[in-house]
Amino acid sequence: MTKLTADNEYFKGIGQISFEGQETDNPLAFRWYNPEQVVAGKKMKEHLRFAGAYWHSFCGNGTDPFGGPTHIFPWDAKADVLDRAKDKMDAAFEFLTKMNLPYYCFHDVDVVDYGNDIKENERRMQIMTDYAKAKQAETGVKLLWGTANLFSHRRYMNGAATNPDFHVLSHGAAQVKAALDATIALNGENYVFWGGREGYMSLLNTNMKREQEHLAKFLHTAKDYARKNGFKGTFFIEPKPCEPTKHQYDYDAATVLGFLRQYDLLGDFKLNLEVNHATLAGHTFQHELQVAADAGMLGSIDANRGDEQNGWDTDQFPNNINEVTESMLIILEAGGLQGGGINFDAKIRRNSTDPADLFHAHIGGMDIFARALITADRILQHSEYKKIRAERYASYDSGKGKAFEEGSLSLEDLRDYAVAQGEPQTISGKQEFLENLINRYI
Amino acid sequence: MTKLTADNEYFKGIGQISFEGQETDNPLAFRWYNPEQVVAGKKMKEHLRFAGAYWHSFCGNGTDPFGGPTHIFPWDAKADVLDRAKDKMDAAFEFLTKMNLPYYCFHDVDVVDYGNDIKENERRMQIMTDYAKAKQAETGVKLLWGTANLFSHRRYMNGAATNPDFHVLSHGAAQVKAALDATIALNGENYVFWGGREGYMSLLNTNMKREQEHLAKFLHTAKDYARKNGFKGTFFIEPKPCEPTKHQYDYDAATVLGFLRQYDLLGDFKLNLEVNHATLAGHTFQHELQVAADAGMLGSIDANRGDEQNGWDTDQFPNNINEVTESMLIILEAGGLQGGGINFDAKIRRNSTDPADLFHAHIGGMDIFARALITADRILQHSEYKKIRAERYASYDSGKGKAFEEGSLSLEDLRDYAVAQGEPQTISGKQEFLENLINRYI
Amino acid sequence: MTKLTADNEYFKGIGQISFEGQETDNPLAFRWYNPEQVVAGKKMKEHLRFAGAYWHSFCGNGTDPFGGPTHIFPWDAKADVLDRAKDKMDAAFEFLTKMNLPYYCFHDVDVVDYGNDIKENERRMQIMTDYAKAKQAETGVKLLWGTANLFSHRRYMNGAATNPDFHVLSHGAAQVKAALDATIALNGENYVFWGGREGYMSLLNTNMKREQEHLAKFLHTAKDYARKNGFKGTFFIEPKPCEPTKHQYDYDAATVLGFLRQYDLLGDFKLNLEVNHATLAGHTFQHELQVAADAGMLGSIDANRGDEQNGWDTDQFPNNINEVTESMLIILEAGGLQGGGINFDAKIRRNSTDPADLFHAHIGGMDIFARALITADRILQHSEYKKIRAERYASYDSGKGKAFEEGSLSLEDLRDYAVAQGEPQTISGKQEFLENLINRYI
Amino acid sequence: MTKLTADNEYFKGIGQISFEGQETDNPLAFRWYNPEQVVAGKKMKEHLRFAGAYWHSFCGNGTDPFGGPTHIFPWDAKADVLDRAKDKMDAAFEFLTKMNLPYYCFHDVDVVDYGNDIKENERRMQIMTDYAKAKQAETGVKLLWGTANLFSHRRYMNGAATNPDFHVLSHGAAQVKAALDATIALNGENYVFWGGREGYMSLLNTNMKREQEHLAKFLHTAKDYARKNGFKGTFFIEPKPCEPTKHQYDYDAATVLGFLRQYDLLGDFKLNLEVNHATLAGHTFQHELQVAADAGMLGSIDANRGDEQNGWDTDQFPNNINEVTESMLIILEAGGLQGGGINFDAKIRRNSTDPADLFHAHIGGMDIFARALITADRILQHSEYKKIRAERYASYDSGKGKAFEEGSLSLEDLRDYAVAQGEPQTISGKQEFLENLINRYI
Repeated sequence: MTKLTADNEYFKGIGQISFEGQETDNPLAFRWYNPEQVVAGKKMKEHLRFAGAYWHSFCGNGTDPFGGPTHIFPWDAKADVLDRAKDKMDAAFEFLTKMNLPYYCFHDVDVVDYGNDIKENERRMQIMTDYAKAKQAETGVKLLWGTANLFSHRRYMNGAATNPDFHVLSHGAAQVKAALDATIALNGENYVFWGGREGYMSLLNTNMKREQEHLAKFLHTAKDYARKNGFKGTFFIEPKPCEPTKHQYDYDAATVLGFLRQYDLLGDFKLNLEVNHATLAGHTFQHELQVAADAGMLGSIDANRGDEQNGWDTDQFPNNINEVTESMLIILEAGGLQGGGINFDAKIRRNSTDPADLFHAHIGGMDIFARALITADRILQHSEYKKIRAERYASYDSGKGKAFEEGSLSLEDLRDYAVAQGEPQTISGKQEFLENLINRYI
Repeated sequence: MTKLTADNEYFKGIGQISFEGQETDNPLAFRWYNPEQVVAGKKMKEHLRFAGAYWHSFCGNGTDPFGGPTHIFPWDAKADVLDRAKDKMDAAFEFLTKMNLPYYCFHDVDVVDYGNDIKENERRMQIMTDYAKAKQAETGVKLLWGTANLFSHRRYMNGAATNPDFHVLSHGAAQVKAALDATIALNGENYVFWGGREGYMSLLNTNMKREQEHLAKFLHTAKDYARKNGFKGTFFIEPKPCEPTKHQYDYDAATVLGFLRQYDLLGDFKLNLEVNHATLAGHTFQHELQVAADAGMLGSIDANRGDEQNGWDTDQFPNNINEVTESMLIILEAGGLQGGGINFDAKIRRNSTDPADLFHAHIGGMDIFARALITADRILQHSEYKKIRAERYASYDSGKGKAFEEGSLSLEDLRDYAVAQGEPQTISGKQEFLENLINRYI
Repeated sequence: MTKLTADNEYFKGIGQISFEGQETDNPLAFRWYNPEQVVAGKKMKEHLRFAGAYWHSFCGNGTDPFGGPTHIFPWDAKADVLDRAKDKMDAAFEFLTKMNLPYYCFHDVDVVDYGNDIKENERRMQIMTDYAKAKQAETGVKLLWGTANLFSHRRYMNGAATNPDFHVLSHGAAQVKAALDATIALNGENYVFWGGREGYMSLLNTNMKREQEHLAKFLHTAKDYARKNGFKGTFFIEPKPCEPTKHQYDYDAATVLGFLRQYDLLGDFKLNLEVNHATLAGHTFQHELQVAADAGMLGSIDANRGDEQNGWDTDQFPNNINEVTESMLIILEAGGLQGGGINFDAKIRRNSTDPADLFHAHIGGMDIFARALITADRILQHSEYKKIRAERYASYDSGKGKAFEEGSLSLEDLRDYAVAQGEPQTISGKQEFLENLINRYI
Repeated sequence: MTKLTADNEYFKGIGQISFEGQETDNPLAFRWYNPEQVVAGKKMKEHLRFAGAYWHSFCGNGTDPFGGPTHIFPWDAKADVLDRAKDKMDAAFEFLTKMNLPYYCFHDVDVVDYGNDIKENERRMQIMTDYAKAKQAETGVKLLWGTANLFSHRRYMNGAATNPDFHVLSHGAAQVKAALDATIALNGENYVFWGGREGYMSLLNTNMKREQEHLAKFLHTAKDYARKNGFKGTFFIEPKPCEPTKHQYDYDAATVLGFLRQYDLLGDFKLNLEVNHATLAGHTFQHELQVAADAGMLGSIDANRGDEQNGWDTDQFPNNINEVTESMLIILEAGGLQGGGINFDAKIRRNSTDPADLFHAHIGGMDIFARALITADRILQHSEYKKIRAERYASYDSGKGKAFEEGSLSLEDLRDYAVAQGEPQTISGKQEFLENLINRYI
């Protein structure tokens, strides 16, 4: 990659993050991540297609429900909306290249502010798409996915595709159309739907069935448009159980898979799973990954972590070694992500106000995935991990167990088998043994 | 109903619970429940097909993870297993009739202890089925549903239908066969599957995909057997996210519906929803009811309540007026439960050790459903509740909104409509108004 | 009270909320609340000293972490900061009087925007204090309590009284001084400390002990100033376990009481308890009330409700009949609140965008407290509720039990008593009976 | 230590766990733990005074609320109560010595079954105390602490020291007396109170104030007896928010400290903190450790881990590297535990039915503490961790900040300082930097 000339002063003094100084003490060098290093037959950068998230890193100013901005960005200073958007994009690409992030992701309104005039919004997005195209060409950074923000504007307060008012839905469609156009123009590899307000605040005023049918119809309509216009990538749906909406329709992986199956969308859509959304739904991230992988629907991930002591989306950068290692085991066994990558949908803390903090956060996040990748590969290559699990199910690989799997035994057959065989032996699940095994390889 | 002659002394001194003394002060009389009273075109007893739960009320002895039994039942005294089983059944029918419960529900091992010998277990169940048949005939009490307990015995510690060992699965099948035989013989109206150990303790030793396929195959096999043997009722699956298993496959209504759809089981199965299982999954009970109702799959309910301050299945008797009233609104609007009833899957507290406590608990539970039924009916008949919700979606009833619902608009059409119409009006969800409306009718 | 002439159009068309039309169908009339009605020896308005919350009702614009304002207030329109502040105050007093709220509460920055210049902020607050004084005189509305917002400004991102930087602490002190001056000038009956950022984001960078000592010192310093300047009211501390800070020092009632005791602040401070803060801490609101009441420290309450399915402070208006009734039982038995009242620290939903929604919300909240008051009084007057509890502890009222309470029995004495008396009888807690009793009176 | 000759076959084939084979692949060898290795100036075994827990490891048979025993122990086979107790103790000491655990902990009823006859219970405990004395002498294993189980027996269903019936309280006292006698006789280093049923099921039937006063009186009485009889060790109280009781009085560290302070018990008592109890209370374990350490009250820990996806006490063996490392940082900085040790209050999973599983579990747990100790020491010795935190508070070390700490500034002084200094600089909390620092040392 080529390092950009910085237009603003924010990241001044921080150069390209180094892969060489893997010593403990340089906080601005990677310790484990090295893009060219080969692990499990591929370069790290091919396993770990990291992406920077426009919204958190270049738009997120530290505001929370109890306080105003704490991160003051120089790129927000100019009066003209397009000047501000270009300054922000300059800074974004400066950060992405210094940070060695090969991809980025955006919502339409991250890139440039939208007003209420659709045509003017389209014009702005067109100009910024051209600007981004040049940036991409200059730096080699690519677009992992684009999306439209259908949840921040006041008009979406009751939902976008699930809004009780068709008029609002049509505005959502206009935004998606423009975001799809931009994604296609920028060779975006995927397109994401996150249904932030697609759900309900109160069942008392909600026709859930009709709203979900509208959502399915909306997705079909958007997909048909994209395909007609040459989009070859995957559509992702990102599950989340709640927040901002009390209840969101895309609750978790299993719920979204059921929805896609019911409404005949399995062919074009896959899942974009987020750690903190998994934990808000009462699952581990590993669970959500496995559910998606088992369905052949593991598309992409939003890398972050939740705080189990706080009940909302804290979107912290990943740092738990055990959690990420177990997650990489599932991703490797699934043959990797289908089309997507590892997007840092994570934000530095509100009181992390030094420009360097954004670098520290990404270094920590990329390093833990690199370490987890190396560890998981060693577990799969050198330990008995896979064999133990496979042997646990051996009784179904032949004989009566196989016949059951093939559907050729009746309930009476099964009962007769049980009578004939008597009481089964007790077989330990050996959970502690396996947990130790993982920790010994970390 | 005929009051039974009591064989034991436990419930002595408590007569038939009265419908007449609706005054506040008689704790052994109903205040709102009156089976013959007509509400919304039907008798209360037709809306509210209450059932007593054998396991909690006649087997549950107050044991918890930190302490032993506190409820000492005289029917557990005898040495012979069948004598004990008959004493318990005598007591159960005495309670059911005194309490005016038209239905009961059981697991096989609630009715009689099982050992490790399948044929002996079948013999015991056959004897108790005959005994129950006579009791049913004598009292008019009916079997709402039967089921097999595939979670308490040591052999099921790694699952029953999802056990990695086929041998264990076959034992589960033997038990289900006997439980289906009993249910059919007793004219049981439904049959329930609750997958207490169908899930995993640790993903590290689990092949989730294979286990779920086994579960689906098992359900098909059981269903085929029952249909072949003349069972006309509905099969219910009861969602629960966790406990005893860390993660259970039948997580919530949406997950189970997705599973049934994927494995072609929608035709024969419906959902049996429990309040406390809903809240453990991060939902309201109302949400789960609505999800099932929208899919035409609302079969039956397990009435209880959870304690939001405790994170496990407390299975308390229902007593929250707001929660039950909002639930009855959904049930009434859905046209009632399909095949099932209101089973009190609830237990008196460990320190509720007076025989009268079991009566108080059921009186409170039945009364709150009766009160909720009356209130919900008044809301539906007399208030603007339904109209307000219907009007909220009026933009889809005609014109472009209707065209969208019919699938005749493209994304460009929607965008053009949005441009033409300009920014939509802001329309309040009026949630507080609706919440007040409910409270004014309570 | 005198109805104000409205200066703005926002609440136009909504007149004084009526006490007369207690029929079910008028959503702009109270159904249970009637200020002059005598319950338990006092007028309702003496029991229920309701207060409007400036921040939620007149400043809260519907912004949430995922979206911008949805409530557009005409009083925010003018360019001049004091003009805006006066317009807002006009609207506030219009609402308070129409709504029959005898009290209001505010943070300094609710009343008028603050900048970074302390003297200018003091000047603004002085002007608005004079303005409020006139409004109070005109309407009879009184100030229940004032407070300073030490959590929204960027400078407080690491805490105010617990900030690692003394410089920031001194700014907090300046704000508290001005807020105390205003509260005293307006005859505010109490003064509140809510430590929104008094806690930590990460233990890794925190000296918890030193921070808590600073907090104690800060409270002493503020209290000394107020007393010196003639403030006779009570200081309240409002517990909350988290949000915005990951961990807040004022976790719950017991934690705050321990802190006040340790740092010799019990004499001047009492607790201001909030429903949703209780539930975030894993308690019921009733629990928190009882803890405070037992310590003689039940000062005031923030009336709202949480959503148990969402893990953050939803601050909805109270509407659960069981919860509020049980809370009123404790408040009545404690002899009422000490100095404080019932402040609606609650906000209408983000999508409740009609001006009438604010009225509906307060009507619902006031009505449910009125209904709960009436019900709780009837339970205390007419039922066995109190007697049952008192008798449960009768063994300590005389004999050896009393001797134990008085400290005159040794461990050997107790053991010998146990040996002499043999195994105790089992005594039911009769929880279901008591739960039914409450529901029968609702 | 001397390896015992095994009387039973259960642990046959498993020899002394080795410290030498630190290669990855031997699951029955330690990888990091080596008792004689010096870390931070002391031997590992002096830092990490590991204890085996009698109840989980030798009594816990896999029962859960939904199923019966899965672990079938040969030591439970004999008919005579004392024969069984001795067989169990033989097995326990065999395990403790093979496992290199220098300490053990017990409840009275873990060691020998109790009936309802106090004198007979005392006789049994006396015999087993003699037996244990010989075992201790033979093996060098020591008693970390003893305690009485005042929660499992039916009579304690409404509490022990907080029971509404004085008669029950006296039975609790008898049990505590005997457990203190045994602890003293066995040179137990500490004595624990865990108030499993000291709390309430329902506030409706509870006089919380009176119950807490009884608890305080009970603790004073027990302490006076022990001191009189020569006990020199520390009393520990173990906080837990709930389970089995809905609400327990010893909610968390701050609550217990407040209680000890209020009732003048600070001098003799310290805290015994458990990981899973911390997380059930909405805290991290690190938080609870810090609260106790700041008060000089960090006595001992119960090492385990919770499952954040399950809302009850799962008591799994510790295995999270980040959690244990951060905990060891706090313990080291606090100067270690005061009197106590690291007790594995953890149980192997219900389906871990191989005898070796108990070894695997303890190996994993001891190893992770050893690894965390080494890592934490390196962080404290070699990184800037401590310095960064100290410098963060430097403004209070001199000048006006110091004057504030010393109490010599008034609110006016503080305000004047703020005015004079103007708006403070924004200082980053650098949380991500510190999180990376920890991970780089792991």
